Amino acid sequence: MTERLYLYDTTLRDGQQTQGVQFSTPEKQRIAQALDDLGLDYIEGGWPGANPTDSAFFEAAPETRATLTAFGMTKRAGRSAENDDVLAAVMNAGTRSVCLVGKTHDFHVTEALGITLDENVETIRASLAHLVAQGREALFDAEHFFDGYKANPAYALDCCRAALDAGARWIVLCDTNGGTLPGEIGRIVAEVIAAGIPGDRLGIHTHNDTETAVAGSLAAVEAGARQIQGTLNGLGERCGNANLTTLVPTLLLKEPWASRYETGITRDALKRLTRISRMLDDILNRVPTRAAPYVGSSAFAHKAGLHASAIVKNPATYEHIDPAEVGNARIIPMSNQAGQSNLRRRLSEAGIEVDRANPALAEILTEIKAREDQGYSYDTAQASFELLARRALGQMPRFFEVKRYRVTVERRKNKYNETVSLSEAVVVVKIGGDKKLSVSESMDQTGSDRGPVNALAKALGKDLGPYQSYIDDIRLVDFKVRITQGGTEAVTRVVIDSEDATGRRWSTVGVSANIVDASFEALLDAIEWKLVRDGAPAI
Amino acid sequence: MTERLYLYDTTLRDGQQTQGVQFSTPEKQRIAQALDDLGLDYIEGGWPGANPTDSAFFEAAPETRATLTAFGMTKRAGRSAENDDVLAAVMNAGTRSVCLVGKTHDFHVTEALGITLDENVETIRASLAHLVAQGREALFDAEHFFDGYKANPAYALDCCRAALDAGARWIVLCDTNGGTLPGEIGRIVAEVIAAGIPGDRLGIHTHNDTETAVAGSLAAVEAGARQIQGTLNGLGERCGNANLTTLVPTLLLKEPWASRYETGITRDALKRLTRISRMLDDILNRVPTRAAPYVGSSAFAHKAGLHASAIVKNPATYEHIDPAEVGNARIIPMSNQAGQSNLRRRLSEAGIEVDRANPALAEILTEIKAREDQGYSYDTAQASFELLARRALGQMPRFFEVKRYRVTVERRKNKYNETVSLSEAVVVVKIGGDKKLSVSESMDQTGSDRGPVNALAKALGKDLGPYQSYIDDIRLVDFKVRITQGGTEAVTRVVIDSEDATGRRWSTVGVSANIVDASFEALLDAIEWKLVRDGAPAI
Repeated sequence: MTERLYLYDTTLRDGQQTQGVQFSTPEKQRIAQALDDLGLDYIEGGWPGANPTDSAFFEAAPETRATLTAFGMTKRAGRSAENDDVLAAVMNAGTRSVCLVGKTHDFHVTEALGITLDENVETIRASLAHLVAQGREALFDAEHFFDGYKANPAYALDCCRAALDAGARWIVLCDTNGGTLPGEIGRIVAEVIAAGIPGDRLGIHTHNDTETAVAGSLAAVEAGARQIQGTLNGLGERCGNANLTTLVPTLLLKEPWASRYETGITRDALKRLTRISRMLDDILNRVPTRAAPYVGSSAFAHKAGLHASAIVKNPATYEHIDPAEVGNARIIPMSNQAGQSNLRRRLSEAGIEVDRANPALAEILTEIKAREDQGYSYDTAQASFELLARRALGQMPRFFEVKRYRVTVERRKNKYNETVSLSEAVVVVKIGGDKKLSVSESMDQTGSDRGPVNALAKALGKDLGPYQSYIDDIRLVDFKVRITQGGTEAVTRVVIDSEDATGRRWSTVGVSANIVDASFEALLDAIEWKLVRDGAPAI
Repeated sequence: MTERLYLYDTTLRDGQQTQGVQFSTPEKQRIAQALDDLGLDYIEGGWPGANPTDSAFFEAAPETRATLTAFGMTKRAGRSAENDDVLAAVMNAGTRSVCLVGKTHDFHVTEALGITLDENVETIRASLAHLVAQGREALFDAEHFFDGYKANPAYALDCCRAALDAGARWIVLCDTNGGTLPGEIGRIVAEVIAAGIPGDRLGIHTHNDTETAVAGSLAAVEAGARQIQGTLNGLGERCGNANLTTLVPTLLLKEPWASRYETGITRDALKRLTRISRMLDDILNRVPTRAAPYVGSSAFAHKAGLHASAIVKNPATYEHIDPAEVGNARIIPMSNQAGQSNLRRRLSEAGIEVDRANPALAEILTEIKAREDQGYSYDTAQASFELLARRALGQMPRFFEVKRYRVTVERRKNKYNETVSLSEAVVVVKIGGDKKLSVSESMDQTGSDRGPVNALAKALGKDLGPYQSYIDDIRLVDFKVRITQGGTEAVTRVVIDSEDATGRRWSTVGVSANIVDASFEALLDAIEWKLVRDGAPAI
């Protein structure tokens, strides 16, 4: 008999508290979609009213199977729940479920809120009752619960009971400071259940300040809690929240969890986990953490030596799960058979079938390795990877040739002594016997300078003769720059995401010490990929 | 009554199994010194004989208070311990203590070693007895112990007992695959102790494949083990080893650990922890993990909102420890009262004293906030922050003015049909009444193109008249680029680290949709900061 565990994602709310993270509304929509596809039970979308992006997200909220949840705080003391405008903004988001945070630590009630302990209990009761009266599923985030319980257990429990009695579906015990260790979390959750709050109404919300957020969540479930709150890639304030990207595969694949509990996530959906994790890093323009459990590029990487030779005999000897279960892959030196079959699988996904005996396979692997040493990255730049393989296989049509380009960046003071800058690009291509010169500048519709890469992209895409109709709908949707070596010998890697009218998206990469050159290479790959995919004829 | 816990560092051995990590001998010496200063009990230096760097390290091993330990494996079957050349190389390192890894999982004995179970037990016994006979402190790393114990508990215990009976000081239970969860680790360690192996002879060695290596180590100690093996910053194969940088402050500062156990590390030494963690990243040329527990730059960073205002009233409300205990610092947003006192402290550190009542303080905060909205980041770019403050305070001398610049990036085919690229920059500055034009190109000494920013930096620093002697020793040591908004409206943030002949390092920032412009702004700040700091006269 398995029991149901509920997974609650707060990437879009608590995850946004990460230093340097601020999602745009379209990014929030993309992440929500991915969370829903994965099978999370709850998606907390933000705090409507507190943050314009959050309000905009709820206004155009995606249709999800998951329960979309708005976050807010309990009403302020001294006014009714009905007359609290902050709470009203949260209700107006119109979500099926609403989560309100409130105080349960006596010290915070008197110190931070400056109200009496009884007033705070009444605040919680009235706020949660208001949600229920409005027909919403109600959650209560018990802030600082563990510190509060240690200081004054009876009071912390009273706060939770008030929410429960008011009809809250979930009482979420929050370790807000992240300072409670797993042993203590397990003990306290057990005591809370013994004190009469049922485990199937309890959630756990931990932070990673002692690097035990995952273990703390597991300890709470072991003690009887049935909801886990966390974030993708462990985003969150300070050291982050409990990492769902780790918890999900642990709950689905590892014992005793796998046979004891059931979640909304299927083994099939789990195979998308690595891709979702990388997508989030992509949105944040972060280098994915290589050592991330389950999804990191090093998570199943075996360095030469004792382990590598054992892995060849039997992967199970040094792996605790099969990397394919989470959509990740084993990394073993490319020079052996596993590297080649991996490559064939990836090519086949791109519609390029290669015979096992084709010597070009080894050539492609060598080329990829050499280029990755220079700073290229073909994990994300799938389109550039395909072009590289097609060239090695002799399957790349010849469309046009770039003879030269020149970009000028100028900055000067105008007659009003304002600093103005402008870039201009000239690109010369040869298409068959035709030579075409195109020139563009970097000004956008608003008269702002968008820089040299913008000018170059416009000039390159301005006149490609017979190919023009194929590329007219290409739109640059993202541009990422990373310096891949420190110091003066720095090399720049540019990754460009493009999109066309059909909504198809593809990524290309360029590397050079010269950032304009690196960008140009990625732009050129973006155009060539589209020509190949749309079957443009060679010249 | 406190009990003694022993801490065993394997950064130099297991940490070196991290993908992309290979320490040089001097780096190993520097790390060993730092570990010793911190107060670790054991420092595992490597596997002498298996790796030339390791052998060189032991040959010139630093004098340490910690017990320097050589790592190796038990003798091979079919020869005596005395006649095993691999083991001999380990012994020849001459360390006081030696740690040998051996098999305890029956499946691995038959599958990987291809010997009988009894032969393996005898191998362990004879190897450990050999160490003891040579007067060394002997440790046995029980590889795959937890998987082995689950498969065949009696056999796994027999292997450990053989080592113990042969005189091993420590039997280290290793979760080599990293797949065992803390609950299971605690249960198995307790069973091992119940089976007669004393807890004060047991060590724990975990890996982070389920993000619970720290919690697993704590669970083992709770069950009775008395030695923890781990690495600085959690380095190690795949997802890394148990992170000593987290475990050490937890054991010293958090309950129940702090009052139950004693380690070789003092509270005073603990204050060096953040510095040691950063030093290791520096050696590895890695960006320090902002969210790292205790030592990360975000570990005590409080984003605006509910938390920030409470922090102002009382830091303990949202911090589980005082950041100073580990040599780290609190970061609070600039836009409130705490922001102002924080700002005054930061200015004072830069030698700029501002009265509490100075209205420029509010002005500076507003300016910082507006610029951070545009994409600037003053967390890291301390030098640009100082210049911004000086300008607002009217403390910025006028040195020179940039009238204009122009950069040309060209790429073409040469007569051998090779693609070559070159950038050229012209910068025009006015110093007092003098106008100076400088031109430079992007070629380095090897004839390689280093791109437009390189050309621009050279032209800007080529002739600044009376200021030239101040800036001649400026060297660009790092250049970081980040796109701060997705999509076509992307804005580029460039952070430049500079260094001068005195070894002083400073960071400046520039932001623009035009990457060349953003770089130019950061370059200009770098020069102006040096002029201010070195007291160059205004013109």
